[in-house]
Amino acid sequence: MTKQIPRRIILGPGPSSAHPRVLKAMSNPVMGYLDPDFFEILDEVSESLSVLYNTKGTSFAIAGTGSAGMEAGFSCLAENDEEVLICNNGYFCRRMTLMAERLKLNFSTLDFQWGTAVDLEILEDKLKRSDIKLVAVIHAETSTGVINPIEEIGQLCKKYGAKLMVDCVTSLAGTEIKFDEWNIDYAYSGTQKCLAAPPGLSPVAISEEGLNYIKNRKSPPSSWYLDLSGISNYWGKEHIAHQTTPVNLVYALREALNITFEEGVENKFRRHELMSDALKSGLKSLCLELPIDESIALNQLTVAKIPNGINDDNFRTELLRNYLIEIGRGLGEFSGKVWRIGLMGESCVASNVFGILNAFENLLIKNNHEVEKGSSLSAASSVINSESPKPY
Amino acid sequence: MTKQIPRRIILGPGPSSAHPRVLKAMSNPVMGYLDPDFFEILDEVSESLSVLYNTKGTSFAIAGTGSAGMEAGFSCLAENDEEVLICNNGYFCRRMTLMAERLKLNFSTLDFQWGTAVDLEILEDKLKRSDIKLVAVIHAETSTGVINPIEEIGQLCKKYGAKLMVDCVTSLAGTEIKFDEWNIDYAYSGTQKCLAAPPGLSPVAISEEGLNYIKNRKSPPSSWYLDLSGISNYWGKEHIAHQTTPVNLVYALREALNITFEEGVENKFRRHELMSDALKSGLKSLCLELPIDESIALNQLTVAKIPNGINDDNFRTELLRNYLIEIGRGLGEFSGKVWRIGLMGESCVASNVFGILNAFENLLIKNNHEVEKGSSLSAASSVINSESPKPY
Repeated sequence: MTKQIPRRIILGPGPSSAHPRVLKAMSNPVMGYLDPDFFEILDEVSESLSVLYNTKGTSFAIAGTGSAGMEAGFSCLAENDEEVLICNNGYFCRRMTLMAERLKLNFSTLDFQWGTAVDLEILEDKLKRSDIKLVAVIHAETSTGVINPIEEIGQLCKKYGAKLMVDCVTSLAGTEIKFDEWNIDYAYSGTQKCLAAPPGLSPVAISEEGLNYIKNRKSPPSSWYLDLSGISNYWGKEHIAHQTTPVNLVYALREALNITFEEGVENKFRRHELMSDALKSGLKSLCLELPIDESIALNQLTVAKIPNGINDDNFRTELLRNYLIEIGRGLGEFSGKVWRIGLMGESCVASNVFGILNAFENLLIKNNHEVEKGSSLSAASSVINSESPKPY
Repeated sequence: MTKQIPRRIILGPGPSSAHPRVLKAMSNPVMGYLDPDFFEILDEVSESLSVLYNTKGTSFAIAGTGSAGMEAGFSCLAENDEEVLICNNGYFCRRMTLMAERLKLNFSTLDFQWGTAVDLEILEDKLKRSDIKLVAVIHAETSTGVINPIEEIGQLCKKYGAKLMVDCVTSLAGTEIKFDEWNIDYAYSGTQKCLAAPPGLSPVAISEEGLNYIKNRKSPPSSWYLDLSGISNYWGKEHIAHQTTPVNLVYALREALNITFEEGVENKFRRHELMSDALKSGLKSLCLELPIDESIALNQLTVAKIPNGINDDNFRTELLRNYLIEIGRGLGEFSGKVWRIGLMGESCVASNVFGILNAFENLLIKNNHEVEKGSSLSAASSVINSESPKPY
């Protein structure tokens, strides 16, 4: 017997739900990735991504997930003798160091406590005292629920002559990114978070300087598959074949971008903010501690401390089995200590906020935690009803 | 205005059409890639792939296309001091050398004329005279339409103690592969050819020796993203997170595998053979030269010489615009000299054989080539009708 695909409310760190129109677009017939009509679809996607990234640079999608975008950056944007700096304040920064190590890059890390943002003074001090050519940082770190100050980091990179590579996996389409204004040279994302499309592509943007750097390297990037220059030549006017493009995922991405612009990017950002505020307000009503300072807390993902006496695995299993809700477990230093609740893309709607708060209330009471019945739902609704609804 | 997805009959070297049930399966709701219910789906896919590869080894899918599978092999299965041999008789072998170069592997190539198969005597001579640790070869080379003798190559690799890595991008599900019996250590494929699913995943198989090799390397593979050991740990019992899995593409792959077993793998291989025979017979009736010797010609892809006086680009453009049929142009040495016609997966049906022969006949006549009207259709039909139909 073949396993049926179950009903789920996916409120983890990603993937999030895809919009039904995106799933429908994806199921269109396959066409050739070198078909001239498909090139018109690529152009649409590329232009839309550039609008979303706020760049006049080049935008396209890698045939791989967000981590492929990460590895492409390290593989392409540094040669072995150049100093690379990784701002390290979470699990996915650690993944960056794993990649840099394997690529034998000349890298160092600037370590900040988990749950805090990149400290700009410390960063400036480091840049001043060294000859860093590439800085890598994560915009929205889902292991800790912290947003990093990319605009200010970009100013420092410009001042000290370093290229800037930013992980926008969780931020793109949920938080504003001003690629050009913030002096970013390379940014990568995933389709399965705020864009509300299935996973499998990494939408990226790269500056002219970034592309020129790759073309002028002493030796080509170690990865052929993830050579950003090669992939951009396929998406560009000459359409030189590189990877086989996952055409159906491109259909899906295009529809996800269309839906984003129909809603309006500002409205979409506001939706992520409002639902996050409602969720956080409800969780506080349930006496759950939110360890991340409000000023640096992500909208896309909320980290809540697991109260004493609650078994993490049992709690999440019950949430999945009896309420069909998936949330994320803690990673790395936060393993077993926190829950991670995502509200992204199509998952980021009022009904899901109420659904998870209701489930949490019931499960916490079952676990003998004193909670006032219904208070979290009413706290969330008062946030959501504080402004007139903007259906999308 | 958004570009509409056009109707197409895709008879190029890939992607081929996907089965409607596969497209439908793919459009199921996204679920978490760490959901225990999703692990059951992974298990099904893994088991089915092992049946198709004929292996007791480990099977899984990489989040990337066939070239990701190729690069994963070179990245994982050789360390820099070990001798690697690439059997070079086509365009995709050249891609292998590009990757090996970038990875700074200690490799050499054994070059054979385009359109011929790997010569076993020459290979044995090379293996005898050197200390090759890894041999890389392409099973079904779509640039030339040639199949290589993997079974015999595997015997030589065993005899001389080299690991064997085989590109099965175009062969899997269209031609028999006996991974274990043929002494293959690593094979990779794509979903968009004979499996009849959309592109975006690379289904692979790896032997126990192959996995042990990776685990015991002096230094880890340069690519984190394409580390076969890491990906197999995610697909294995421990389900340690690595890449974000493109869950919808896994749904699609599972359905494609189910459909393959419903048809019966032997029946499916025979379908590819019969349709290829019919096409080749029809093309010969159109006085087109098929340069590849019958004994080594692929079923999945047929190479035909472009007659003198025909403009390749115009011909293919007219085929696409007026008949909605995509075929492949020549690559590398064969550029401008041949057409490449694929009949794979869902594209490999009688109606498509007739459709393309009819289009070719009309276009050749229009280009003042003397062709007997209707003869190619009748040649093809007599091949197809030589056995009772096996609808699938």
